Amino acid sequence: MNKISDLFYLRKDILFFNNGSFGACPKPVMDVYRNWQIELEKQPVEFLGRRRETLLKEAREALAVFLNCISDEIVYVSNATTALNIIAHSIDLQAGDEVLATDLEYGAMDRMWEIVCERKGAVYRRVKTKLPLNDDEFVDNFFANVHPDTKVIFLSHISSSTALLLPVKQIIERANQKGILSIIDGAHVPGQIPLDLTELGADFYTGNCYKWLFAPKGAAFLYARKSKQDLLKPFLISWGRKEFFSNSPFIDEFEYQGTRDLAPFLTVPAGIEFHKEYSTYPVKQNIRKMLEYTKNELSKIFNTKAIIEEIPENIQMYAHPLPQKINGKLLKTKLYDEYKIELPVSTQNNVEYLRISLQIFNNKSELDILFARLKYLLTHL
Amino acid sequence: MNKISDLFYLRKDILFFNNGSFGACPKPVMDVYRNWQIELEKQPVEFLGRRRETLLKEAREALAVFLNCISDEIVYVSNATTALNIIAHSIDLQAGDEVLATDLEYGAMDRMWEIVCERKGAVYRRVKTKLPLNDDEFVDNFFANVHPDTKVIFLSHISSSTALLLPVKQIIERANQKGILSIIDGAHVPGQIPLDLTELGADFYTGNCYKWLFAPKGAAFLYARKSKQDLLKPFLISWGRKEFFSNSPFIDEFEYQGTRDLAPFLTVPAGIEFHKEYSTYPVKQNIRKMLEYTKNELSKIFNTKAIIEEIPENIQMYAHPLPQKINGKLLKTKLYDEYKIELPVSTQNNVEYLRISLQIFNNKSELDILFARLKYLLTHL
Repeated sequence: MNKISDLFYLRKDILFFNNGSFGACPKPVMDVYRNWQIELEKQPVEFLGRRRETLLKEAREALAVFLNCISDEIVYVSNATTALNIIAHSIDLQAGDEVLATDLEYGAMDRMWEIVCERKGAVYRRVKTKLPLNDDEFVDNFFANVHPDTKVIFLSHISSSTALLLPVKQIIERANQKGILSIIDGAHVPGQIPLDLTELGADFYTGNCYKWLFAPKGAAFLYARKSKQDLLKPFLISWGRKEFFSNSPFIDEFEYQGTRDLAPFLTVPAGIEFHKEYSTYPVKQNIRKMLEYTKNELSKIFNTKAIIEEIPENIQMYAHPLPQKINGKLLKTKLYDEYKIELPVSTQNNVEYLRISLQIFNNKSELDILFARLKYLLTHL
Repeated sequence: MNKISDLFYLRKDILFFNNGSFGACPKPVMDVYRNWQIELEKQPVEFLGRRRETLLKEAREALAVFLNCISDEIVYVSNATTALNIIAHSIDLQAGDEVLATDLEYGAMDRMWEIVCERKGAVYRRVKTKLPLNDDEFVDNFFANVHPDTKVIFLSHISSSTALLLPVKQIIERANQKGILSIIDGAHVPGQIPLDLTELGADFYTGNCYKWLFAPKGAAFLYARKSKQDLLKPFLISWGRKEFFSNSPFIDEFEYQGTRDLAPFLTVPAGIEFHKEYSTYPVKQNIRKMLEYTKNELSKIFNTKAIIEEIPENIQMYAHPLPQKINGKLLKTKLYDEYKIELPVSTQNNVEYLRISLQIFNNKSELDILFARLKYLLTHL
């Protein structure tokens, strides 16, 4: 075991290749988190009342610097699911309007759009992605599907089951030219790849801070570009502008959501600090090398072709398509039950993908164990 | 200081008479809370994935026993605000339909109903309450305001600013006879007064577990009577019935809300245990006596008449109306800034109320200090 793993609570008897689903919060960050919770308990009225706005503003400012946006363009939420629900329920969709997405979206959000569009009489449509992914082809193909009723573009920045980094910048640029709203699901992005929200230019964006930015569960953000904030309607209505009068109606309406623990949000700056110290360039380069190795090994083991040419810089997940003859769910279960290897297998467009996440605590010898187990299991399934 | 106060993190230099706003979580319960958070971090996939449903079911069952309802009639939410938003957004209100409430409701929920009704073209109306409160008169007066367009009755079980225990049982009975939906805001109820949801017979009810039930922030419940559950539409749409298939669609749709910390919910059983051990009958009787004393003293100090005849059994809050000539906000600020006495002063129907909460850690000598300070301040404001 390397020393980095000692910084996490993760059980040492498990080979943990699934940071992507829920992340892992390091011990020093958990300490900061607990200190905030105790600080709250010492004087709840001061903390949740008089100090609340200032504390949250400071936490937003630290995240805004990390994401390069104005601090009044982001508000903390519990997870990307919450942010995307707020956006989807808010935006004005008329009967016949179309929300155009990809066929690589996260299942729960795919379902959410289906239901929201159905309620509003709008159309939710998924553009079929050609794999292996080619960025230019992807963008052209996506826009070949845009038509005058397309009012919203929704796509993942990094897809979930397939771990693909999608060319969202090009998509957003063309969406902006056409006056189509862009909503980006960056659930897997913060901490994994550098994110510059101002440069990216999306109308709405969300990211989780607990996956790759070392924050505790319950820390995520909703970004709304200043000029589009008035399109959002509070989803959970509380005091809002009846009580709060900062210079941002967006913050006033969306930040206070009844009594809740602010500690996950207040701990994000500590997650960012940890990230700066440990998710360094050499560490990231090493992870990339390990993922490239993973891609090659899995291609050999399963005798299936990867869905990307090469691992993009900074990416920490790789998903490999399983051949149809293999029962991926069974494979996953056996890996865990027999070898305590944790990784997800999920289905996208009728293909099962085995996804490997590499966080700073993973190392090559763990991968070698995985590959050996996979080879053995494939002959014994 | 009594020994009970050592069980809490609350600062000893502050006289804390505001348990009502945010509650206080005892150290032993916070320990349980932290253990759940670490347990999650040890194996996030197992905890938030494979074990999630079972863990939450157990936590719901413990609360359901405490509230006397079926465990599939309650789902954990972060706070009463969330629960009431879910209900209000869900229910079918046509143009002209009326939501009838009291003029004692919590400001944020009052605003929420105003906005929701406006969006739906419905009418939100507040029945004027005659004070001092008389239960029979209150019920009769409330129903004198009911008419054929009244589709929903909304009221607090214990009001916030005025700390009044309202006769909700009688209101619900008559609402049920008339086929009017009843929605009860029990934000301040669990742990303060015994609650039997089955006997009460409300259609929808919500309560916070962090105020008087010793749970951590972020623990509350939404109750929906079995026969009315299909009126609720998920507010935050996630996997729902695309992924979960228990025997309760209500639980499947409302329990999973994206990745979040389950620890506040899982800690509720520990809060209940603490409550059983410390909020005993003699302790409650003593609190009642102290509140009766408070009522008498404040009536003398302010020379205003109390809004209740006597402190109801189990109640742990008392709100006294301030005379118009006193600036309540200034009084409150001075109490804190000069004497470190924490209590809320809030306005309801143009009257300012000073509210005293007595939790198990408060004692009579603290009250005597408060009264002495008040007397002094009143001659020096």
